[in-house]
Amino acid sequence: MATPGAVHEALAGLELVDHHCHGAVTSGLTPEELASLLTEGEAWPGVSPFDTPAGVAVRRHCAPLLDLPRHAPPADYATRRAELGPQEVNRRFLRAAGAGAFLVDTGYAPHPLTSPAELAAASGAAAFEVVRLEQVAETVAARGVEPDEYAARFRAAAEEAVRRPGVVAVKSVAAYRTGFALDPARPAHAEVTGAARRWLAAAAPEGGGTRLTDPVLVRHLLWTAVDLGLPLQLHTGFGDADLRLHHADPALLTDWLRLVSGAVPVLLLHCWPYHRQAAYLAAVFERVYLDVGLALHHTGPARCRAVLEEALEITPFRKLLYSSDAYGLAEFHHLGALCFRQGLAGLLQARVDADELSLPDALRIAAWTGRDNALRLYGPHGLQGLHGLFGPPVSDPARDPSGGPTRKV
Amino acid sequence: MATPGAVHEALAGLELVDHHCHGAVTSGLTPEELASLLTEGEAWPGVSPFDTPAGVAVRRHCAPLLDLPRHAPPADYATRRAELGPQEVNRRFLRAAGAGAFLVDTGYAPHPLTSPAELAAASGAAAFEVVRLEQVAETVAARGVEPDEYAARFRAAAEEAVRRPGVVAVKSVAAYRTGFALDPARPAHAEVTGAARRWLAAAAPEGGGTRLTDPVLVRHLLWTAVDLGLPLQLHTGFGDADLRLHHADPALLTDWLRLVSGAVPVLLLHCWPYHRQAAYLAAVFERVYLDVGLALHHTGPARCRAVLEEALEITPFRKLLYSSDAYGLAEFHHLGALCFRQGLAGLLQARVDADELSLPDALRIAAWTGRDNALRLYGPHGLQGLHGLFGPPVSDPARDPSGGPTRKV
Amino acid sequence: MATPGAVHEALAGLELVDHHCHGAVTSGLTPEELASLLTEGEAWPGVSPFDTPAGVAVRRHCAPLLDLPRHAPPADYATRRAELGPQEVNRRFLRAAGAGAFLVDTGYAPHPLTSPAELAAASGAAAFEVVRLEQVAETVAARGVEPDEYAARFRAAAEEAVRRPGVVAVKSVAAYRTGFALDPARPAHAEVTGAARRWLAAAAPEGGGTRLTDPVLVRHLLWTAVDLGLPLQLHTGFGDADLRLHHADPALLTDWLRLVSGAVPVLLLHCWPYHRQAAYLAAVFERVYLDVGLALHHTGPARCRAVLEEALEITPFRKLLYSSDAYGLAEFHHLGALCFRQGLAGLLQARVDADELSLPDALRIAAWTGRDNALRLYGPHGLQGLHGLFGPPVSDPARDPSGGPTRKV
Repeated sequence: MATPGAVHEALAGLELVDHHCHGAVTSGLTPEELASLLTEGEAWPGVSPFDTPAGVAVRRHCAPLLDLPRHAPPADYATRRAELGPQEVNRRFLRAAGAGAFLVDTGYAPHPLTSPAELAAASGAAAFEVVRLEQVAETVAARGVEPDEYAARFRAAAEEAVRRPGVVAVKSVAAYRTGFALDPARPAHAEVTGAARRWLAAAAPEGGGTRLTDPVLVRHLLWTAVDLGLPLQLHTGFGDADLRLHHADPALLTDWLRLVSGAVPVLLLHCWPYHRQAAYLAAVFERVYLDVGLALHHTGPARCRAVLEEALEITPFRKLLYSSDAYGLAEFHHLGALCFRQGLAGLLQARVDADELSLPDALRIAAWTGRDNALRLYGPHGLQGLHGLFGPPVSDPARDPSGGPTRKV
Repeated sequence: MATPGAVHEALAGLELVDHHCHGAVTSGLTPEELASLLTEGEAWPGVSPFDTPAGVAVRRHCAPLLDLPRHAPPADYATRRAELGPQEVNRRFLRAAGAGAFLVDTGYAPHPLTSPAELAAASGAAAFEVVRLEQVAETVAARGVEPDEYAARFRAAAEEAVRRPGVVAVKSVAAYRTGFALDPARPAHAEVTGAARRWLAAAAPEGGGTRLTDPVLVRHLLWTAVDLGLPLQLHTGFGDADLRLHHADPALLTDWLRLVSGAVPVLLLHCWPYHRQAAYLAAVFERVYLDVGLALHHTGPARCRAVLEEALEITPFRKLLYSSDAYGLAEFHHLGALCFRQGLAGLLQARVDADELSLPDALRIAAWTGRDNALRLYGPHGLQGLHGLFGPPVSDPARDPSGGPTRKV
Repeated sequence: MATPGAVHEALAGLELVDHHCHGAVTSGLTPEELASLLTEGEAWPGVSPFDTPAGVAVRRHCAPLLDLPRHAPPADYATRRAELGPQEVNRRFLRAAGAGAFLVDTGYAPHPLTSPAELAAASGAAAFEVVRLEQVAETVAARGVEPDEYAARFRAAAEEAVRRPGVVAVKSVAAYRTGFALDPARPAHAEVTGAARRWLAAAAPEGGGTRLTDPVLVRHLLWTAVDLGLPLQLHTGFGDADLRLHHADPALLTDWLRLVSGAVPVLLLHCWPYHRQAAYLAAVFERVYLDVGLALHHTGPARCRAVLEEALEITPFRKLLYSSDAYGLAEFHHLGALCFRQGLAGLLQARVDADELSLPDALRIAAWTGRDNALRLYGPHGLQGLHGLFGPPVSDPARDPSGGPTRKV
């Protein structure tokens, strides 16, 4: 029954939903700027960011899309990239990603980045927006607000933000601000007012330092996110130098997840190196999901399958999603997709070949994790229209109460 | 010297000691009940528990034992299971497990489960009992006790419980109640009395809420366990939704293990995803042991070898044991055994094939971990009689002081 | 382009820099002493330390160097080792390691060990010294010092120690003493004096208990290390029973690393099972490096590649170094090197074979991690002279600003 390579073929042809990414830079890049965007850290003197698993993967898998040989030297790569210009570079990589939809976090843009509409135009895919709630809160503070009005104003601003067309989810970077070792309870109004008073007072003198790092306000933000009713994306695990990695272990969210009790879908992003912890949460809490975005292109084709194997050890197959978490370099929108397709296909095909998994099951799992789980989650919030674009999802079959593969793929 | 497949053959024929499991359900199951028992979480609307690594493994490896084709659909599986009835289903799977003995935790039974004697009858193996100490303590409380008598009454009740024929070990689920970030010291009598007073007072009004979660009483329970002199099984790592996973990291037990100082064997159960931490403890503390039960059937044949590879990275080969941690579904008594045999055989055979391990060493390691380490640990407490059943253990050869393989297998 | 086995060949011929090890025992060993040195724990009655992954690896890979068959029994091994005597045993294993230089931690010697000069003579390699700062501090205390002079006297003693010829780095075992969950800030002088007063007073009566475990003094030691300007080696992760493993997670150092801000190179030693956390730190902080020493020979050839695969998932290739962390048994100086060569070659060759990595890139990565990253880091502090010994490093090519492989290997 198992055609050799059938899973690879199916995944190669699957229009992915990249459920969490950022825009691509719209300006040309000097070699130094390119190097800096290649890494989650910075470019360091004498140490090339190309000398990393991600850098090696870019030279191997992205160079050919710029008409260069595989493994092209970094200098050639930078030159050719500059020659083609950002528009053409973005067009090539974003189309190569083969996504049907991108969900774009628009709340972090130290560089000039494509808007969702520009990303859609460049990629030929649909693009949707994810609202970063810390940015909403900080904008409320920057515009001036009385401490006892902060809670209501933030809530109103967030509600307004998510009413914008194309918004399908909210996101929090609480992991960066306080970490997850927080009191899980919803803070009382007086507590929020007191914390807002301290925050706004501290911020005022400099007129800019409104970075939200107060633990009470971060808790308040997470509970406000729940009230909004949209799927909530949470940065967990791996990120840049501004993080305490161990505070971003999603297991620390357990008590909060228990209190929230499935009010909204919670999507644990990235997760590495705590993807097994995330898998446990996804296995025991009904509306908890995960992806291994960011880790896909940073570990590269050499290791992304291993990371996916660990992430899927106990994760229910309806609970894993695909994201690239690409930021800045359109290379990463492409590389994330490539790593996901290759890694997952390798994993599934090996199980089919060992007769541990039937081919129809493997194909369903591929479609679910690459596309349908996202459609199912975000669909009620605006991705619905995509069903036409994607064709009927594999994920809504008429099924008996015990579920399972009662439908041909 | 290495016959191809010799390790697989040896493990296939080895009568295992499943040193930690629960009973199998004695009632028929609706499809919903079956689905619910398939997962450590619950069955969720629209998401089949069959769509998990464990569910896939059940359809692949258990369906044929119910006369169904491999990868049978869940609905067919549930129907056929109901048709055969619980007795026949249990008989088939429990015999297929190929265990010589089951050690059964009898302290957790939200469903009607086989007693050890019933498990023995259905499986054709011997069955022994593991006393769950939290249940003993809660029974003492439920029956009414003065706070200053709690310590003595609990101790007496525990001593009585372990004197019952067939009891070979005690168990604690402290991981669920407080986690392991406890003061490691033995609590003073006054402290225990004070804590018991608060606990019993809080429990009284409702007349039922005697769940033991007080940190002083949990510490007291652990130290009482040590006093009993029997091997102590500790839940660590992976479990159901009632857990804070990171509080169940066995590394948190380090100070307590140092104080206990090998007074009794301590068996770290399950451990995933902290099996490397458990391996460290087993490598440096004389009487600390581990297994990867529960993770075997939840990760399935596709990943159990990888988990065993990690668990055995530095673990002395006399320190790993086999358990299924099966609960409710006899499928899991079988699947745990199958995963252990396949995973360990794959691991060992690959090392023999690469000439990194001699075949006699591989066979010794298989016999030790699957059976003899358990016989050695539990033997003085009642498993001794099994030596006849099992034939001479590989684990007690006359050896020179530096140990080692001076004996043919 | 890729000659089959070219990476294995290159790594087999590469003169390694073992950037962290200890001396080898200079006395003969009874079977019991041999057994005890085989493990990070102790030898336990009835459980042979040969029945571990490291013991199996010694019998497989070290026995032939003692003219014994592969997989020789432990008793034969111990007999033959005693027969040859420590000098000959050390000579054989240290030469087999194929290192060009050993960096020797001289601050821990419960057994009679080779000095760096003796290690150099036995191995035919160069040997350098790493000063363990806890030993310097404890010597200052043991000799008698007024509390308010402690800071200056420790600083002076450390400066004197690192001025000795051949010293190229300092080391701290803070992981063992307090763990890394420390206040990261540099302690004020008064705080140090107060802590020194308590420490010296507590130590005085017994006249020997000057073990440095005070959190303020450990912080002070780490900051003094930074002031010295030499590369700083930090024990992290796996070690002996005197450790709380989870307190040695290098992620706990994040805030301190941020404050130190690259003032000196910080080398995270061992790291297992937190090597992914260490990799994250190496990826985002400019002067943070890691190795997986100790884990190499303890996991053995069967698993060292897997550990290296995880360690290199996101680690920049200029950030991984080689160390054996061998202590006592020269077997481990050899086995560490063998595991590193085999594991890394397997990893790199597989990527070359899959065309995920070019052969020249693979060869550069091998030379960097096995030798040149160490030369680059320790070179300014005295390893410079080795450049002649080693031939021109691959690591200093004239490169374009974005770096990369512009030079043939």
